[in-house]
Amino acid sequence: MTMSAPPTGVVPPVCTPLTPDREVDVPSLVRLVDHLVTAGVDGLFVLGSTSEVAYLTDRQRTLVVETVVRRAGGRLPVLAGAIDMTTPRVLDRARAVTEAGADAVVVTAPFYTRTHPAEIARHFRLVAQGCGVPVVAYDIPMAVHTKLPAELVLELAGDGVLAGLKDSSGDEGAFRRVVLGKRAEPGLAGFGVLTGSELTVDSALAMGADGVVPGLGNVDPEGYVRLLRACREGDWERARAEQERLCGLFGMVTAGDPTRMGGSSAALGAFKAALHLRGVIDCPATAEPQIPLSAAETERVGKHLATAGLL
Amino acid sequence: MTMSAPPTGVVPPVCTPLTPDREVDVPSLVRLVDHLVTAGVDGLFVLGSTSEVAYLTDRQRTLVVETVVRRAGGRLPVLAGAIDMTTPRVLDRARAVTEAGADAVVVTAPFYTRTHPAEIARHFRLVAQGCGVPVVAYDIPMAVHTKLPAELVLELAGDGVLAGLKDSSGDEGAFRRVVLGKRAEPGLAGFGVLTGSELTVDSALAMGADGVVPGLGNVDPEGYVRLLRACREGDWERARAEQERLCGLFGMVTAGDPTRMGGSSAALGAFKAALHLRGVIDCPATAEPQIPLSAAETERVGKHLATAGLL
Amino acid sequence: MTMSAPPTGVVPPVCTPLTPDREVDVPSLVRLVDHLVTAGVDGLFVLGSTSEVAYLTDRQRTLVVETVVRRAGGRLPVLAGAIDMTTPRVLDRARAVTEAGADAVVVTAPFYTRTHPAEIARHFRLVAQGCGVPVVAYDIPMAVHTKLPAELVLELAGDGVLAGLKDSSGDEGAFRRVVLGKRAEPGLAGFGVLTGSELTVDSALAMGADGVVPGLGNVDPEGYVRLLRACREGDWERARAEQERLCGLFGMVTAGDPTRMGGSSAALGAFKAALHLRGVIDCPATAEPQIPLSAAETERVGKHLATAGLL
Amino acid sequence: MTMSAPPTGVVPPVCTPLTPDREVDVPSLVRLVDHLVTAGVDGLFVLGSTSEVAYLTDRQRTLVVETVVRRAGGRLPVLAGAIDMTTPRVLDRARAVTEAGADAVVVTAPFYTRTHPAEIARHFRLVAQGCGVPVVAYDIPMAVHTKLPAELVLELAGDGVLAGLKDSSGDEGAFRRVVLGKRAEPGLAGFGVLTGSELTVDSALAMGADGVVPGLGNVDPEGYVRLLRACREGDWERARAEQERLCGLFGMVTAGDPTRMGGSSAALGAFKAALHLRGVIDCPATAEPQIPLSAAETERVGKHLATAGLL
Repeated sequence: MTMSAPPTGVVPPVCTPLTPDREVDVPSLVRLVDHLVTAGVDGLFVLGSTSEVAYLTDRQRTLVVETVVRRAGGRLPVLAGAIDMTTPRVLDRARAVTEAGADAVVVTAPFYTRTHPAEIARHFRLVAQGCGVPVVAYDIPMAVHTKLPAELVLELAGDGVLAGLKDSSGDEGAFRRVVLGKRAEPGLAGFGVLTGSELTVDSALAMGADGVVPGLGNVDPEGYVRLLRACREGDWERARAEQERLCGLFGMVTAGDPTRMGGSSAALGAFKAALHLRGVIDCPATAEPQIPLSAAETERVGKHLATAGLL
Repeated sequence: MTMSAPPTGVVPPVCTPLTPDREVDVPSLVRLVDHLVTAGVDGLFVLGSTSEVAYLTDRQRTLVVETVVRRAGGRLPVLAGAIDMTTPRVLDRARAVTEAGADAVVVTAPFYTRTHPAEIARHFRLVAQGCGVPVVAYDIPMAVHTKLPAELVLELAGDGVLAGLKDSSGDEGAFRRVVLGKRAEPGLAGFGVLTGSELTVDSALAMGADGVVPGLGNVDPEGYVRLLRACREGDWERARAEQERLCGLFGMVTAGDPTRMGGSSAALGAFKAALHLRGVIDCPATAEPQIPLSAAETERVGKHLATAGLL
Repeated sequence: MTMSAPPTGVVPPVCTPLTPDREVDVPSLVRLVDHLVTAGVDGLFVLGSTSEVAYLTDRQRTLVVETVVRRAGGRLPVLAGAIDMTTPRVLDRARAVTEAGADAVVVTAPFYTRTHPAEIARHFRLVAQGCGVPVVAYDIPMAVHTKLPAELVLELAGDGVLAGLKDSSGDEGAFRRVVLGKRAEPGLAGFGVLTGSELTVDSALAMGADGVVPGLGNVDPEGYVRLLRACREGDWERARAEQERLCGLFGMVTAGDPTRMGGSSAALGAFKAALHLRGVIDCPATAEPQIPLSAAETERVGKHLATAGLL
Repeated sequence: MTMSAPPTGVVPPVCTPLTPDREVDVPSLVRLVDHLVTAGVDGLFVLGSTSEVAYLTDRQRTLVVETVVRRAGGRLPVLAGAIDMTTPRVLDRARAVTEAGADAVVVTAPFYTRTHPAEIARHFRLVAQGCGVPVVAYDIPMAVHTKLPAELVLELAGDGVLAGLKDSSGDEGAFRRVVLGKRAEPGLAGFGVLTGSELTVDSALAMGADGVVPGLGNVDPEGYVRLLRACREGDWERARAEQERLCGLFGMVTAGDPTRMGGSSAALGAFKAALHLRGVIDCPATAEPQIPLSAAETERVGKHLATAGLL
């Protein structure tokens, strides 16, 4: 499948199931792909934060892309993160994931090093020049410690550098400036604006977003598919009810004790515990050095599933 | 050469000379090693921030370590950064640099992902378990956005997890707590405490630090060697005069226009311009997407060299 | 007028017009109140960020409250910021603004000093105990550098400590958790949840927010009143169109050159320039040490007004 | 006493003793002044962070200045913080403390509001113009969230705007740039450069600092006076031994449980507990909403005093 533009609709960031000794659990990953595709999602995003990309070795990253691309079988597009610190390393990662079959790459601003707006722009231009597939900008200040300005995103989109935006900044005002800036430029019709804010998807779609990349969509893809459908049909009451149910379910990320573990351990631990409890994956392990959920914390995740009718 | 403990004394973080098309310039790198070794430094640190580690591909990183290790020829130890986001990726990097001949690895706290003190401790413990060489902690909050607490460093040193600390935090009060904590524990005699703060080396050595990792030491290694010698001889006046001269020379990092480029471009651009002007390396290029110094900015670097008697 | 609960609906944060020598311009302030009341707003919020509270002396703050309360004349409630660093100083400010006639006080977490979640909770409890009017929590991490957790807000609301929330954090996911948490507790029916995010008011009201505190509402109060009405009538298309027009108008905050001035100078400078151009206030001056807009920058503000049909 | 320049030497930031109901405890404050003056300090700094300035009402602030000025009786200069958010409010505070007898005012960059380097410069210029006493810049990024650049400090000093710097940034490299910049300009001979970093005073004085403002100097002023004397005599070994003893004593700030309270509660709680245990002040209470030390935590403070031979 060739992709001339980034996918729209529901594009879950696919969790990476691990074995107890932290290898990629390929059979579980295949089942997770089936779980998502069967639910009717529109695309798959691998090697993002929810995939634990920061924890996977290059070999594991390639295995993940190959496994998901093969199972997707061209039925829906696969985007892959090319997550690394600066331009030359990102280009290496982009090459690896496209050779493994990804249809587009998702790229952040430089991190670890000190950077500057002019360097961020140069980075995206060089990455787009150097890789033969569409580039989606990944705005994730929590990870890279800079925010992509709406004006820069629109400028790069207008110049054909960016094919889309995955906005995980949580800044809905800035997100709306991108949506409205796109609408004001007929040449940007093919630019895909996706939100990563899984608790305000109805709002983002009402504003005019093209799609959503919901981490919680691993656990309840049907919910996000129904939510998208309700929005597309203009049934905002039904959309809101579905979103509110998903907000309740999202409460599972507070199951882990924050005095004992970081936010990544708690959120990814909860998603994986839920996938394990639902029978999709064989083992809820997260990668090192994340702290595992305790039995009691896992039980709290189960209660959230039960309340949402997912157990 | 085997290293039972991290080196002490002057251990410059070696710049990575690049060709105009951004390949590792091996002959220039060899000359840079000679420039440093001839000056009398005590060890070499490759693949740190000053080496543009964040910008080098894995292939280039390996080439750098191999080149420097070969040229050092066992005359002095070579530490290498194993800089990546989390434990599994750091272990991969540690394997690569030790196979290429590094005597010890330098490792930061996790970055890009959200983390937690308990996860940081677990990270260092797992890295030390998994790699067969001494591990030096790299405290660099500017890059990873967390600070290693003095208490954690001492605890990990006491447990044999860490062989040393390279402190680039700029927090001299916390640095002193580590120095004093080490002195209070006879078992920590072999633990090496190195400062990365190149403008306060006389202070750090007076406090009891074991050594220094000065980026500016690429440009003027003799200066830091003299500074160290003066400190070891207890001639604090001479040490101060030498340090103050080096502080003046360090002014070169302000040559680059901060409205046009980031701090990394300006500092590394100045160091490389100075090495080029001094005839050590063939080309002053920094890696993408850094912004190059202009001719006028390079001229200002030259004036700093001239003032310091280095041209 | 007594206020048993914080107002709902459109509650603009009232700008503080100044004379050329930076005194409170009382006649202009009176005209601004009339401008807002005539447009049909539901309440007035004085001494918030948009009022330049951080720049007004205590004497000026009192004059502002007295002027606005007198002109409001009981027709609509007046909330006033009691903005200071910690509990004892906030209590002093709360006393001053309530003596001047404010119906409720708006209070942030401690700032300037290092704080802790337990201290933030204690702060709000002590402030509520010590002042005889309703307390509205002001969540403004950009100013105080901590975020009020949704759980804490709900806990304090449940205990009768807080009468409302003014959320200027821009974190719509967390805002929604408060809205849904309120709905789940019948005892919280009187708790008022107001958003300060003026670009996503349709979203916030669709989620169930009780009202909005839009800085831009100084310039175009009729726009926000129409927006609220459309939302209350469930006409989301009309609401969205109105909000999008207001998003365009908001572009005026980019008129000021960001290399020359800070975000506060640019945003408040633009609002005041617009009020001056519309003939509401006599002088567009902002308080010291803010940088004034140039003539060319003011002209750009004027173009935004013209485009929006407000000149 | 008139002060043509800010004091040099040991200038402790004076704690503000409180009664159990959080009023200023004037008799204890008088005893604390005597405790410091008797020890031989060179000046007194009231209404800084260590004085809990952020927690004191305007009435209490005035009472503190009047009490300390009266007791100092012209024997040594008294500097006072004029700590508030922006220029007009700082000028009000400067007027109040100078009317109460302060010899100089200590002023931070704007806070709470968003600011910009050009606005920070304008702020200090306007404050200096508007108040008839010397202005000392207070560089405290932890509180105000911006760092004063060394270049700006030197420019303002050269223009006669600033009479001194109190540097609590902990950035010793930048501090040294100010010290060296001062030395390079004969016109800056009267500019006083004081460090607030109480754990590296020997280093700062060796670099050429004019003095120190040590919070721990409340507890052990004799120690800092001895440390200063040793430095002035060039006896760096004795200075280092004294500083290391004081570093050990400083460990008292870790007595408070950091999961239960913030850093301000722990540090100021420890200093006040120590002053209480030493019999200088009547009550160890800190202002609201700080969390008090428990009996066990206070006992740990006592052990630090005993180890240092101060009980």
